[in-house]
Amino acid sequence: MGEKTVISVDTAGGDKGAAVVLNGLAESARKNPDIAFILHGDEAVLNKLLRRRKALRDVSEVRHAEKVISMDDKPSVVLRRSAGTSMMNALECVAKSEAHVAVSCGNTGALMALSMLKLRKAPGIDRPAIAVLWPSTSAHGYNIVLDVGADVRADDHTMAEFAVMGAEYARLSFDIERPRVGLLNVGSEDNKGRPGIRKSSQLVAEIAPKAGDLEYVGFVEGADIVGDKVDVIVTDGFTGNIALKTAEGTATFISNSLKAAFTKTPLSRIAAFIAFTSLRRLQERIDPRRVNGGVFLGLGGAVVKSHGSADATGVSAAVKLAFRMGKTNFAKKVADRVALLPDGRRSSEVDGDT
Amino acid sequence: MGEKTVISVDTAGGDKGAAVVLNGLAESARKNPDIAFILHGDEAVLNKLLRRRKALRDVSEVRHAEKVISMDDKPSVVLRRSAGTSMMNALECVAKSEAHVAVSCGNTGALMALSMLKLRKAPGIDRPAIAVLWPSTSAHGYNIVLDVGADVRADDHTMAEFAVMGAEYARLSFDIERPRVGLLNVGSEDNKGRPGIRKSSQLVAEIAPKAGDLEYVGFVEGADIVGDKVDVIVTDGFTGNIALKTAEGTATFISNSLKAAFTKTPLSRIAAFIAFTSLRRLQERIDPRRVNGGVFLGLGGAVVKSHGSADATGVSAAVKLAFRMGKTNFAKKVADRVALLPDGRRSSEVDGDT
Repeated sequence: MGEKTVISVDTAGGDKGAAVVLNGLAESARKNPDIAFILHGDEAVLNKLLRRRKALRDVSEVRHAEKVISMDDKPSVVLRRSAGTSMMNALECVAKSEAHVAVSCGNTGALMALSMLKLRKAPGIDRPAIAVLWPSTSAHGYNIVLDVGADVRADDHTMAEFAVMGAEYARLSFDIERPRVGLLNVGSEDNKGRPGIRKSSQLVAEIAPKAGDLEYVGFVEGADIVGDKVDVIVTDGFTGNIALKTAEGTATFISNSLKAAFTKTPLSRIAAFIAFTSLRRLQERIDPRRVNGGVFLGLGGAVVKSHGSADATGVSAAVKLAFRMGKTNFAKKVADRVALLPDGRRSSEVDGDT
Repeated sequence: MGEKTVISVDTAGGDKGAAVVLNGLAESARKNPDIAFILHGDEAVLNKLLRRRKALRDVSEVRHAEKVISMDDKPSVVLRRSAGTSMMNALECVAKSEAHVAVSCGNTGALMALSMLKLRKAPGIDRPAIAVLWPSTSAHGYNIVLDVGADVRADDHTMAEFAVMGAEYARLSFDIERPRVGLLNVGSEDNKGRPGIRKSSQLVAEIAPKAGDLEYVGFVEGADIVGDKVDVIVTDGFTGNIALKTAEGTATFISNSLKAAFTKTPLSRIAAFIAFTSLRRLQERIDPRRVNGGVFLGLGGAVVKSHGSADATGVSAAVKLAFRMGKTNFAKKVADRVALLPDGRRSSEVDGDT
């Protein structure tokens, strides 16, 4: 793989087509000389698109894929018909160590299912998680929330794994030594929530801080996701997914209301013109495209899921994240941390090692 | 009680003190001649505050309460020490039919615990719920989400009760005949989510539409809370509470970012000045004070919980809602609807009645 960090890209599957994906990659290629791409998709289309993007063409290799996984394909169907798809081929490059990390804008459920198939769970990992960066009032501007993707519940030990994996992602993203981690609940008092969540919290407090080199602060509330109380918010995939989509919906709703308010009257349109810079500053602050890239944690290789509706800026943000993950051998770091967790379910051998 | 709708108000317990609460009541008294209040709190304080508020004084009766329940009191402690508190006295007036409805800005957990004690669950209700109005893109401007308050999970039949109670609240609030109701999940496809939630959805689809005169549309996602797909979103109290607090946090975060963007430079401050009307229009659209008032559904009497940090506008909004509930005998309507649900857990007598 030489000295460059190689990113294997599934160019299909996004809502906006391959041209938008390649615009994003071209932006990354211009900014970062240490990056190289393997592009998976329709060869004819990709070669044509590369003709007008010289900087990208110089660092890219095209690999033809016959098939594409659509946004509507169910994971069960995907697993049977994945051979030869651009998504599967993109992951295969990571499995064969031809690339350091894979990026896809495609179907999240399918990407997770195929990642588990091709890259396997990392040793000692019970359940992989999808983590996202969330705009917040913290000094580094974002918090990490996981798991936001899965459709099943997580048990107590899984929560401890999430805490450790999330903390490692926080170290990568925020450059902090000892991330603060909280467990999402309906109140921050110890007596709040279901009995199950209190048991989870006790186990996380007991085993996660040492293995994950993290500070466990206990329960946090929904509002803390955008606050400065913790760097990492741990929750089960069901609750996390609903919180994420509710917050995205709320942000879009307010953003649209803002636009409506500023186009209602001639005077408001003048105000919008003058306020253009201020409004853009706000847009950048809360823009989901800039934090684009859900990260799959706990696999035998690094995978970044870009938003299906990402534009070039969003794709480029996902590539930037993938580059850092590839360059630092992030997937292995995460697995090494989780291996330090004592685990009654498997064996307690590692218990004395920590 | 005469022809006026009597509202029993716990004037203590809010974050901003009794004066702010009375300002809100005064606003309601000015606007609505069909309203009367019974005020619970420190007699000396209340009488002094009423001196400067003639319109309110003319329609109010003061009842002295020795004690106050604080925001930090745990529900278990509250239950033992509730006698003589302004909250308990406010609820007692409803239990004794001296008032049509109770309003409090106090501790939500305590208010629910005391409401269950004093007003009891309505016949046939398994678990009461807290429902809120949520700003949305729908024609009526809001959706209803329930349950947002409880700390325990709800079973399948409880979800059906929530659907029926939420639909009745939608009829009261939005003046629509047949509310559309959805169940919150991680995807809208039938195959998404945990097995448990699919079973819930099947039962809701089977028994709720007829009893509740509602249209059940199946699963909805977090983003649909602010959308126009349904009027009522049903979820368990744990998920609902986290979604609510995440959305409130997101809205506050964006609102603060907006302020920061508009005060950063001299030019941005000029823009803010010109854009004042537009910004205020937005503020009003997303202002949680205007939709202030969580409603307790499924009790033997009507109770409205106003936000602890509500200002006069917020209190007045909660009173307006309480007025409508008192005037229409809302609590009984809800109970009558739920009684139409067939229930395998208790008896199936009502099964043939529907």
